[in-house]
Amino acid sequence: MNQGNNPTLAEVGEQAAINVIIAHAPSSRNGDDAAVLDHGAPNSRTVVTTDMLVENRHFRLDWSTPAEIGRKAITQNFADVEAMGARPVAALLALSLPKTTRLEFVSELARGIAQRVGDYNAELVGGDITEGDSIVLSVTAVGRLGGSIPALTLDAARVGQDVVASGVIGESAAGLALLQYYGRKKVPIEFQPLVAAHCAAAVPPGRGFVARSAGVTAMTDNSDGLIHDLKLMANRSSVSINLHKEAIAPSALMHKAAQAIGADPWEWVLRGGEDHTLIGTTCLDAPSGFRRIGTVTKTKTIAVSVDKQAPQFENGWQSF
Amino acid sequence: MNQGNNPTLAEVGEQAAINVIIAHAPSSRNGDDAAVLDHGAPNSRTVVTTDMLVENRHFRLDWSTPAEIGRKAITQNFADVEAMGARPVAALLALSLPKTTRLEFVSELARGIAQRVGDYNAELVGGDITEGDSIVLSVTAVGRLGGSIPALTLDAARVGQDVVASGVIGESAAGLALLQYYGRKKVPIEFQPLVAAHCAAAVPPGRGFVARSAGVTAMTDNSDGLIHDLKLMANRSSVSINLHKEAIAPSALMHKAAQAIGADPWEWVLRGGEDHTLIGTTCLDAPSGFRRIGTVTKTKTIAVSVDKQAPQFENGWQSF
Repeated sequence: MNQGNNPTLAEVGEQAAINVIIAHAPSSRNGDDAAVLDHGAPNSRTVVTTDMLVENRHFRLDWSTPAEIGRKAITQNFADVEAMGARPVAALLALSLPKTTRLEFVSELARGIAQRVGDYNAELVGGDITEGDSIVLSVTAVGRLGGSIPALTLDAARVGQDVVASGVIGESAAGLALLQYYGRKKVPIEFQPLVAAHCAAAVPPGRGFVARSAGVTAMTDNSDGLIHDLKLMANRSSVSINLHKEAIAPSALMHKAAQAIGADPWEWVLRGGEDHTLIGTTCLDAPSGFRRIGTVTKTKTIAVSVDKQAPQFENGWQSF
Repeated sequence: MNQGNNPTLAEVGEQAAINVIIAHAPSSRNGDDAAVLDHGAPNSRTVVTTDMLVENRHFRLDWSTPAEIGRKAITQNFADVEAMGARPVAALLALSLPKTTRLEFVSELARGIAQRVGDYNAELVGGDITEGDSIVLSVTAVGRLGGSIPALTLDAARVGQDVVASGVIGESAAGLALLQYYGRKKVPIEFQPLVAAHCAAAVPPGRGFVARSAGVTAMTDNSDGLIHDLKLMANRSSVSINLHKEAIAPSALMHKAAQAIGADPWEWVLRGGEDHTLIGTTCLDAPSGFRRIGTVTKTKTIAVSVDKQAPQFENGWQSF
């Protein structure tokens, strides 16, 4: 069954799979029982988070390339580190794969991971690989939070602050809807940027650190849905949040895509997640790369409103 | 389909599953985008490792209770942190579960995790939960390595050192063989300690830290097989290792169990993994809790020998 240069894991074994990963993402910390990270700067803290991606639940092989899946796994984990105001420095990858998986899949996945980890000057420092019935990636991200300013927690939004955001809102959901409607290969070329936003969101590294330095106090990323995630912040902080409709309005391209497939682009904006756009609150000017999208108010009946009205859509991603 | 107090995840949803985990393993670090750990001691480094457990590959629900699975997941990850000479301080849990999974399973799993994390004075600081076709646990362990002594890496064994070990060798493999032969419920009561060694190895916390303080230079745990894991150390350190047969000989109970099911107990000792027994090398006396089981020699044809002979069994666990 050996397909020349594209053998299965059953044919080449575990070590070959580990070797192609290390070839793309080498690290001197790798290969022992555990990885020892460098000393942090004095007074710095360690930040950790984990997210699991399951085939056909978080990604589909007919919609995403293996490299895109690898990039996405790193992006969403590093976004959670950035959402605390920290710098991602390392990632761990635990991987379950059917034994019929091609070695090339592992290699391409690792290439995507290495690309994205490299964008952040971070390293893939270790992992685990095992046989399983389906493809499951579990990435852990490790970050450093320097100095004594508090982390950007969900409970630190204060009445009177501005709500600021860095990144697109709703484009990932638009891309997903286009994939569901057309399949990857038939999405019209003009909508490709939306598909790219879904399959491999390219949030710029370092904005979490910038936000914390520039006086943001609370921050999250819209991973499960804009309203869903901001509700969590509003509830934890005992405040309400009012978003400015114009500031979060769908782009012209999103409107066009929505029209083409008969969807409402506001659903993408309000319920869509996975843009991994950072959303914070601050009393000061919007940090570099951020724009103002709303204000923090006293608690009202509606935890998160849009132009003071209840949002048209609000439920986000639920695992069950 | 609701079974009274034992609903499925499809019935109660993601938040209920998270709630029962947090009820067993509460942490103030939990519930934000990422967990911020305490400042380490000055000059301390962070150590990270991850291991994935897949249903029917690493555990079976008819052989292990959910609490045992939880304990095992922590034990094997924390053993890797200890094998560097570090102290485990935190764990993250990523969990994929079919939607028909009972909430009680999640609760019991969390109870086992909380127990074991508590043994180490560590905390479960975060995680992720998602729907998937099979049960997959991915645990990440975070540890602290204090001071300036090097970590206990695989490449630091030196000719003339003693090989020292803390814990049983081969009992987990004996337990697995008994489960395969009898099934959990029919294993004779006298062999239960061996089954317990497999389903919930109870390695005492803190020995990695003790070993590093007491002059051990290289260390690993026998997770994939005694000879397999020591070969890795011997190769990385460019040395050979000779084990003393008497010091690693199967116990009387292992002999009896082997006789009962027609097995060779030496295969359990030499090929068996998952005891998570720490094995180190040192020029000094064996640290508290460790015993001498061999010596480090110049490179010979046989990387790891037993009484200077090639071992009777040697291949260990392979994922593919």
